[in-house]
This record gives sequence, C-alpha cells and structure tokens, in this order.
Amino acid sequence: MTKAKDYVIGTQVRKSPFFDATMRWGVESFSVYNHMYLPRSFGSEVENFHNLVDHAILCDVGAERQVEITGPDAARFMQMLTPRDLSGMEPGQCKYVLLTDTDGGILNDPILLKLAEDRFWISLSDSDILLWAKGVAVHSGMDVSIAEPDASPLQLQGPKSKPVMHALFGDALDDLKYFHHRRMELDGIPLIVSRTGWSKEYGYELFLLDHTRGDDLWEAIMAVGQPLGLTPGHTSTIRRIEGALLSYRADANIGTNPYELNLGRLVDLDQDADFIGKAALRRIAKEGPQRKQVGLQMEGAPLEGANTDYWDVIANGQRVGMVTSAIYSPRLEQNIALALLAVDHADTGNTVEVAMGETRVTAKVVDLPFYAGNETGSGD
Amino acid sequence: MTKAKDYVIGTQVRKSPFFDATMRWGVESFSVYNHMYLPRSFGSEVENFHNLVDHAILCDVGAERQVEITGPDAARFMQMLTPRDLSGMEPGQCKYVLLTDTDGGILNDPILLKLAEDRFWISLSDSDILLWAKGVAVHSGMDVSIAEPDASPLQLQGPKSKPVMHALFGDALDDLKYFHHRRMELDGIPLIVSRTGWSKEYGYELFLLDHTRGDDLWEAIMAVGQPLGLTPGHTSTIRRIEGALLSYRADANIGTNPYELNLGRLVDLDQDADFIGKAALRRIAKEGPQRKQVGLQMEGAPLEGANTDYWDVIANGQRVGMVTSAIYSPRLEQNIALALLAVDHADTGNTVEVAMGETRVTAKVVDLPFYAGNETGSGD
Repeated sequence: MTKAKDYVIGTQVRKSPFFDATMRWGVESFSVYNHMYLPRSFGSEVENFHNLVDHAILCDVGAERQVEITGPDAARFMQMLTPRDLSGMEPGQCKYVLLTDTDGGILNDPILLKLAEDRFWISLSDSDILLWAKGVAVHSGMDVSIAEPDASPLQLQGPKSKPVMHALFGDALDDLKYFHHRRMELDGIPLIVSRTGWSKEYGYELFLLDHTRGDDLWEAIMAVGQPLGLTPGHTSTIRRIEGALLSYRADANIGTNPYELNLGRLVDLDQDADFIGKAALRRIAKEGPQRKQVGLQMEGAPLEGANTDYWDVIANGQRVGMVTSAIYSPRLEQNIALALLAVDHADTGNTVEVAMGETRVTAKVVDLPFYAGNETGSGD
Repeated sequence: MTKAKDYVIGTQVRKSPFFDATMRWGVESFSVYNHMYLPRSFGSEVENFHNLVDHAILCDVGAERQVEITGPDAARFMQMLTPRDLSGMEPGQCKYVLLTDTDGGILNDPILLKLAEDRFWISLSDSDILLWAKGVAVHSGMDVSIAEPDASPLQLQGPKSKPVMHALFGDALDDLKYFHHRRMELDGIPLIVSRTGWSKEYGYELFLLDHTRGDDLWEAIMAVGQPLGLTPGHTSTIRRIEGALLSYRADANIGTNPYELNLGRLVDLDQDADFIGKAALRRIAKEGPQRKQVGLQMEGAPLEGANTDYWDVIANGQRVGMVTSAIYSPRLEQNIALALLAVDHADTGNTVEVAMGETRVTAKVVDLPFYAGNETGSGD
C-alpha cells in the first residue's frame, strides 16, 4: 500500500480501547474500518509479514465490531440472516458465515460466535450490520434484542502465539480447538478467547469485555510476549492474499454473490430455514455465476505495495474483469493477485493482461490459495 | 484537528469520482466517511474558513452517499423511516430529517430529496442506511426498491457561490429556492443542483449523476470559479460549530435522541403515520430528555485545532456531560464547543469545567448557535 497524505484524528471516527497503546508502540498509519481507526503499519509491511509467519504479532482489531443477538427467538433470527446451516452449531463454537440480502449479495463475511443457545455475536467485517439486523427485526415478529456489546478484539497471530498464550494462561487453553471460544480472565480483565484470526497462521483472538482495560490488556500481553518474539503488528495484506482471505469491500461487496467468490460451501440451500436471499441464491446456483474469483500470477517488477486502484483485466482487447487485491509475496517471489473474471476467462492456466494505469503486464490464472497455511478448515 | 500519522490508500475504502481532482488540487489529508475518502484539508483550516465565509469553496462530499427509494409504496415507506411529517412535501423539495430506530435513537441526519411522488433520495451522513432501509423492507410487505444511485455531490459554498453558478448556468437557477433542487446539465454532464449545504452560508450542492465525469465537472467549475474567488476546500469545522450543525458520530449517534439535541422540531408525533420510533419518542417527549446539547464558551488559550477526544464536563467535582466538538473561532475570538450535559446543568449562564486531559478550564453555558448565518431555516 502506498502511504499518502496525512490523516486527521477526530471524534467523528472512533478510537478502539487499544488506540493509545498502539500510539505508544509506534503505529505509523491507519485505515478506517467500521467507523473506527484501524492500525495499518508499524513500519515495514514485509517485516510485519515475517514477524507474523516466523514469530507472532499483536494486532488491534477493535474495529471488528460485534453485534449481539439475544432473546427467545435469537437462534431463529440468526439463521434468517445467514445462508449457512447453523442447526448443528453448539455454544462455544465459531463459524465463518456470510450475510446476504434478498438478492444474494454479500453484506458482510463475519465470524459468528455462539455464546449460548439464545446469544450470538457477529464479529464483523466493514459494514453496519447493527443497522441491517435491527432493520430486519422491525417487522419480523420475532422476540430478539440487538445491540453492540462492550467487546473489542485483539488478534495474536503467528507460530509463537502458542507459547505466548501458555505464558499468559498456563495450560487452561490447551484443549481449545480451532474455531472454538471460551470465557477467560487475565489479571482480572474479562475476556473471550477464540482460536480464530485472519492470517491462516496459528493464532487467537482475545475479545476485551471492558473497554476501560485496553491499556492493561495490551501491556500485559506485550510484557510476557516480547521476550518470546512478539511484536506489535497489523493484519498482513501479503499473508491474507497468499491465503485468499477476502477483504470485504476490496474483494467482496453487496454486488458480489457467494458463488462467484468460491464460497458456495457457506450456502446451504437444502436446509428448511428460509434465510434471506435463499430464492436468489437458488437461482444463481442453478444458472451458475457469471464471474469467478481466481488467483493471478503477474509478470513484471515486484510491486512496491498493494494496489491502490482496481486494475482492469484484459483478454483479446476486451475488459474481462478486474484485479481487486494485488501484492508482491516475498516468500513466493511473485506478484500475486485476487481477481474477479468473467467465467469464460477464469480457467486455470489461462493468460490475460492486467492494466496498471499505462503499464500492461501478462498474468496467468492459477488456483487459490497461493499458500495454504498451518490452519486448515476442519473446524471453521 | 491534529494531523497525525500517515494514511493508507487502498481499495478497501472507496474513492469518490472527484478523488483524482482533489489530489491534483493539493488535498493534504483525508477522513473516511461512509467507507469513502473525504478530503479534510487543503492547508490551513483557518484559511479554509475565511475562504468559505468571505469567498467560496468547492468541496468533494461524494462520501455523502445517496439511498434511493422507489416504487408504488415509496412515499409510505419513506414516511415510516422518519419522524418528520412528509405529507406536504412536493417533488423538487429537500428536507433535513432524522432517521430513528425503535428506541428513538438517531441512525442518521440526512437531507431528503423528493425527486418524484414515488422517488426519494436520502443524502446521508455517516452510516449504512442502505442496509437499514433494506432490512426494514424485508418483512414490511411494501413494494419498494432500495439501491444506491450513481450520484456524488460536490458542495459549492460561500457568498461567491452565487456569481460562480451564474457564470456556469446563466439565470437558469435564479428562482431555485432554499432547500429545493432541480435537474440540470453542464457541458453535457447530468446533474441535480440543490440549494443546500453544510455551512450556514449561501451555497449549492451539485450531484454528479455520471461517476465517469468527476474530473470534467470539477475542472469546469474551477475554471469558471477561480477568477471569481473560488478555491478548493472542505467542510469547515469552525463554521459548522459556530452554526451548531451536527456532525453525525461526533455529536449524535444511535445512543442520542432528537430531543436532547434540540431537534424536536423534526419529530411530528401528531401525524397519523406510524414511523419507526414513534412510541419511544412519545415517551421521551412526555418525560423530558435527561441530557441537553448546549453551547460552551471555553476559557484558556486558543485551541490549536478541534478536539481529538471527548472531554469530560465537570460540575461540583462530578462528571455531568461531555464536549463533543470544540474549536477556536477566529471571528468570535473564542474557544467554542458543543456539549451534551445533564439537564440540571444545561441552563444558559451556568458555569462548568472542561477537563482536557490534565488541563481544566472554566466554561460558560450559552445559547446555540454561536453564529447564525446567512441561510435561515425558512425552507429546510
């Protein structure tokens, strides 16, 4: 990503409970996510990538806001919001889900936490699902309460996150499985800890349940973690493109559907529940999507950062799609990209051109992900 | 506002059609608003203020996204979304409205444009009302379509905006009244022009209806306007605090209601329509709000920029509220602030203390606005 221009700090954008801590620990740039500041650099993006894959990083992802659904009809309401069949989901589990509108368009791709039979948290990517859920509830006739709880996650990601958590919690989390969560405390700070993240590396999320304790939690983790190799960091664009993890708004939005993003596994059309978007998604599944997300290996000099614009993808002189996310992977020694292409051009092995402003480079369609990872999808 | 840290440009945050133009014309910092970059500085904030009140400024407010409501039930649906009685609203009119949830909390404070009997645009402050409206529609049984149209506003504000518009459109807009709008064209660029803004100065909004023509529109206006005193600018925090214009999220949010923000005039409880929040707002109106927004004249050295945190307001050693927006007004030669105080402390003439970190200053409660303006509320 290109650093460009100053950023204005004000009260119109919220600060996470870890904002002051990240300032003390050298944050250099922000983005805004769910109307909150989100740290995007502590220096070198490549260094952050190596810190993540070789050691461990602590990331302020407080901007991942939670929407809490509670009440007698909470489970039925939650199922209405997502195409994924939740009937087998147990309290303590997490699931990666999509939220879709009546046209099957993707409104968000959150992690869902089931806290109790009648209590769910939707851990959001960047859109106001609080408003969507409250809007759906107005005329639903269901008995639910919808609110934003006092919960702000940190991500602790990378191979050394395991020894760091051992040093913090002893063996209390040894049996916590991938995509499961548990209520914990650290020095009297109330937490929910989950085995989730956004890196395809081994890792945890720690949901702070008392926003006044942000400094305490950050410093407690860094004090124990730093000698074990932990550094402050941020979600890695390199690692997430390698792993083909979606960035909502960059790679997916209300105008995209699950099938074109290869996420048909998250749509259960055969369930009895009438989730929002079911009819539209059934039609799309039958007709087949018009576009398909693919990986591109791009020729040319190493990119100096991620793309700051969408790049047209060209075949036979025609625009056939666009690059949504691109970056240079230092371990693959390759420019890699996620692209949304017309299905006719999306076959593995196809050759296309990518127009980066005036520059055109050749690119080859490849299977995703570019680099799988240490966490596999058994539990997600 | 304090400039702090670099900002990262990427595809996760959208660019307005005027983004490239603002870069060419020297934008120095951004905020993010409705998931889009919003220019926040072209140099000095005080200079921008003088440009606005003495001359004219052109502001990229493409981040004011529109939500279009169309269809046979559009008028009935739109009335359900707002406490303001729309029964007398004619096509061609604009109205400042609030959108409230079932608890009477403020979800947005947009300008509503009535384009036709069955077509409305909600010109948004910073929240995803597209999702709220789509959510409300799901089980409403009403026949409406809800979408984001291709419409991106510029604001042309300040006393010289009138001669600039004359130079651009001749006398075609001479009869366009305050809070009215009209379909126009400029060099073949399709527009809607309204007599609205966010400055309390004389001004216009120009809604670009073809996102590919952003550069053309910006340059056409600057070419004609620059000799008349027009400069690129941004919404002025000084002017809007003087005029007591709300900044959604800074001064108002889902946890505030219309009465505590002195906006009871936008709530028509006596209408027949059952808008969302009616029962809650009736109760609040009867019981009286617990808090009240007031103006504060603050002692101490001139503030160097706007507040970057909420500041506690103290009386008799107790926290009785908070400053939501504060700045130094060069023409009033005074630190001025908008604050939300417990009603017991909100009487005009009361003295309180404001805690800015370690520093405490004395402040006096005063009536709002600090400086009324050249546009009065006849038509809004």
